[in-house]
Amino acid sequence: MTTRADGRSARGDRTRRLILRQAVRIAAAEGLGALSLGRLAGELGLSKSGVFALFGSKEELQLTTVRAAVETYVECVVEPARGLPPGLGRVLCLFGNWLAHSEQRVFPAGCFFYSVSADHDAREGKVRAAVDTAHTDWFSLVERTVDEARRAGEIREDTDIPQLAFELVALLEMANAESVLHGNVSCYRKAADGILARLRTAATDPSWLPDTL
Amino acid sequence: MTTRADGRSARGDRTRRLILRQAVRIAAAEGLGALSLGRLAGELGLSKSGVFALFGSKEELQLTTVRAAVETYVECVVEPARGLPPGLGRVLCLFGNWLAHSEQRVFPAGCFFYSVSADHDAREGKVRAAVDTAHTDWFSLVERTVDEARRAGEIREDTDIPQLAFELVALLEMANAESVLHGNVSCYRKAADGILARLRTAATDPSWLPDTL
Repeated sequence: MTTRADGRSARGDRTRRLILRQAVRIAAAEGLGALSLGRLAGELGLSKSGVFALFGSKEELQLTTVRAAVETYVECVVEPARGLPPGLGRVLCLFGNWLAHSEQRVFPAGCFFYSVSADHDAREGKVRAAVDTAHTDWFSLVERTVDEARRAGEIREDTDIPQLAFELVALLEMANAESVLHGNVSCYRKAADGILARLRTAATDPSWLPDTL
Repeated sequence: MTTRADGRSARGDRTRRLILRQAVRIAAAEGLGALSLGRLAGELGLSKSGVFALFGSKEELQLTTVRAAVETYVECVVEPARGLPPGLGRVLCLFGNWLAHSEQRVFPAGCFFYSVSADHDAREGKVRAAVDTAHTDWFSLVERTVDEARRAGEIREDTDIPQLAFELVALLEMANAESVLHGNVSCYRKAADGILARLRTAATDPSWLPDTL
């Protein structure tokens, strides 16, 4: 009995992951409004009732999709940087990962959060709140990571941290937008050069910084 | 006969402008996909056949709406700057107008072009091409305006103009996105400070630049 139940649960988990991967892909390309239990069942050759049993409602599906995208993002971008000690190295790792993540199209349609942020189908309610929280968390993480570098003595004490974080994130977002909307990839080099220039101005020892990110 | 025909044509122009103003408002808030001849007729108390006679098709309506938004943009942001001689003054006027335009919500839902660029309903065809052209034209205008300041001797000769333009536009876009998505208005001050810092680095005489934009 136990084995059979575990087998079922493992199968359920696999199916759930399979569905969420597809859901993140659809939402990144077409917006959260394009998600439906029926479409996912059809595209993956599953029964609609099976998909319904796992997610219950369209809103629940959308919320779980946002959470799944956050998890992928944390895994690809945030965790490798958290593995390094606080300081400029951690800052560089965070932004380098972000650009690589966007350029390599971990989400094929570009940054999931860029795509769903301007999503006219998801402007209100719990889904909007989940997207907003993800965005705010990311911004706070950037500020915290830059401030840690200041406290480690690698960024000048008088640096305006919220201003620097704003300028750094602006460069990331611009690279992603240019690449998604215009297929322009030179934007990643421009963003990386801009980030290094900003950090060079703020660093206590600019010579420590590499020439390219 | 002539008077009557002219009267009709003037009335047609007024109606057309009225419809387009509403169309730009809807598209900025909900995307170009939300535009329909029927909805506009309903919201403005006009006959659907009258609106149809003026625009012909949904695609034509969307294209004309993009053109109307470009015209408003040129009038509010570009033309006042073109009234000044080439140089840093013209650059400051262009970016100052852009930020004021976004902050004052000339388009109530924020930048029309930000809103429709990530519009999942308008990813292909002539409408997408029109949005792309507007975006490319804007980028070229920024590069040209900054390069004019270089040729006028007010920006250093060795400045990487495409890189500087990318960084300046990134700050504008970020301010608009933060304000639209999170109701955060401190982003306008941050964008203005970032723009002045970039121009101070590039200017042949940084002391010429004001403290605030």
